[in-house]
Amino acid sequence: MIKMKKFSIAIHGGAGTILKKDMTKELESAYLDGLREALLSGYTVLENGGTSLLAVETAVSNLENNILFNAGRGSVFSHNGLHEMDAAIMNGKTLDAGAVAGVTNIANPIKLAMLVMQNSEHVLLSGQGANDFATEQGFSFEQNEYFFSQLRYDQWQVLLGSDNYALDHSNPVNEIKDGKKFGTVGAVAYDQFGNVAASTSTGGMTNKKYGRIGDSPLIGCGTYANNKTCAISCTGHGEPFIKAVAAYDVSCLMEYKGMSLQQAMNEVVHVKLVKLQGEGGMIGVDSHGDTAMIFNSAGMYRASKSSDSKMEIAVYK
Amino acid sequence: MIKMKKFSIAIHGGAGTILKKDMTKELESAYLDGLREALLSGYTVLENGGTSLLAVETAVSNLENNILFNAGRGSVFSHNGLHEMDAAIMNGKTLDAGAVAGVTNIANPIKLAMLVMQNSEHVLLSGQGANDFATEQGFSFEQNEYFFSQLRYDQWQVLLGSDNYALDHSNPVNEIKDGKKFGTVGAVAYDQFGNVAASTSTGGMTNKKYGRIGDSPLIGCGTYANNKTCAISCTGHGEPFIKAVAAYDVSCLMEYKGMSLQQAMNEVVHVKLVKLQGEGGMIGVDSHGDTAMIFNSAGMYRASKSSDSKMEIAVYK
Repeated sequence: MIKMKKFSIAIHGGAGTILKKDMTKELESAYLDGLREALLSGYTVLENGGTSLLAVETAVSNLENNILFNAGRGSVFSHNGLHEMDAAIMNGKTLDAGAVAGVTNIANPIKLAMLVMQNSEHVLLSGQGANDFATEQGFSFEQNEYFFSQLRYDQWQVLLGSDNYALDHSNPVNEIKDGKKFGTVGAVAYDQFGNVAASTSTGGMTNKKYGRIGDSPLIGCGTYANNKTCAISCTGHGEPFIKAVAAYDVSCLMEYKGMSLQQAMNEVVHVKLVKLQGEGGMIGVDSHGDTAMIFNSAGMYRASKSSDSKMEIAVYK
Repeated sequence: MIKMKKFSIAIHGGAGTILKKDMTKELESAYLDGLREALLSGYTVLENGGTSLLAVETAVSNLENNILFNAGRGSVFSHNGLHEMDAAIMNGKTLDAGAVAGVTNIANPIKLAMLVMQNSEHVLLSGQGANDFATEQGFSFEQNEYFFSQLRYDQWQVLLGSDNYALDHSNPVNEIKDGKKFGTVGAVAYDQFGNVAASTSTGGMTNKKYGRIGDSPLIGCGTYANNKTCAISCTGHGEPFIKAVAAYDVSCLMEYKGMSLQQAMNEVVHVKLVKLQGEGGMIGVDSHGDTAMIFNSAGMYRASKSSDSKMEIAVYK
């Protein structure tokens, strides 16, 4: 009997002030179901001998299709009443990467990011130009209604009259002003070929203006993958993650200082990001297929599973 | 007599296949004059006790105002006949950063990047949204004619009928198809207070489409500054610089492996970027005020000067 090689996957659905007291049993259960389903969709790819790249695309697409998470279908409203989405994917074997920022009416921005990587000479496309690329690649566009949810709409209305924006993604309307939930989804995986990959997707901040781009689609900041070290997907207050070049910093601490994945992620999340008031977390997988999920906020929607360990799904600390 | 504290500045005006045989004496002289003028504009700020942040903004603004360089006024034509510009600035003392991508009709994108850093809660603004922010900040907009030059127009016309784009910025029209000149400007500086800063600005690639964003406005990729280590501004084929997270990699090699600025820049430019087919170069200054200018292409427009060394201006290897 041939022993199957190790493989593993971890996903996140955002981080922030996620407190048990604010959660109904039904909502919590829906989140856990959503995480389980997305995790298994990616895990199945790996189990069937698929690549880590396909696994992270599959898992993130699944989360994008779930209206509970702030990405794809569940994206929050930006200031102009649209859903402006960002996504990135990176292949740890080749360092190839693709990303989009500020795309609209695309059901699965992560699939567009994948095509930027595969079918263009570029890494990052933005705005209407990225939508034009989607058209050329044969993407179909969803009507605005596809992205509508009453919760998101109510959240937006709370902020619309103000210049405020909110990073929240799932908490009750009356808490959104705290700006303490970071709606992003992501996945990292290690496949049977020993390759790692990372992907991240987000609907950004409620009421965001000015074509703001956060860390999610930025290679090295919110998303990074390198077979030498690790694959990382971040979720949190984007600006400090950009200043910290958070995802690549984990990789550098491993490559140049010999830290383990866990040590490097602890250093970045609990020391460096804290200094920059960077609330949030990240998931990672290293070149041995070991995963880690670290956050400095009250909670992070997260799940992981490997071929030699049980499924782990959690929300709170 | 009080001994003045050390200060230094380095600038670049792009890299690529810049060969003496392709250059007229007059054009070369104009480039050298432009570099000298920009360098001295930043140097004077430092000499008068100004901050490195103001020095790099001043030097890059000066280059943006010079039609010879692909940034600001001299920006190339994008596919739609506009000038879509990117810029970033970073403060090594605080790690604060500001950047804009795909802005139009702005004479000095670097000044807008500075205001993103100072007057917004964001790091990176893009497209029309970034222009809206400029309006709110009281920016005046230039007509398209301000950015017109016959050379750039001819370069664009060569490529317009095709799907090709070119990174060139200054070579004759008949060479533009090589895609081997990388039009970007940048500055790094170390001031009398011991703080470093970096700034980068570009008009991108001739005939670029899809809202493509290169490395210049991406913190950690084309631009990075940290008092612990160094300030870096890159110029080159943007995509490999993004995959390499080139600017932050120099910082990490210094902080985590104890390399000197020169060693770290050599490692990134001559080893890592070469592996990724990343042609171009970078300028840097470390936390002692020592500068370095390294490139793997035939040439890089560059200049440097410190309070204890003579001015250096060069184009070729």
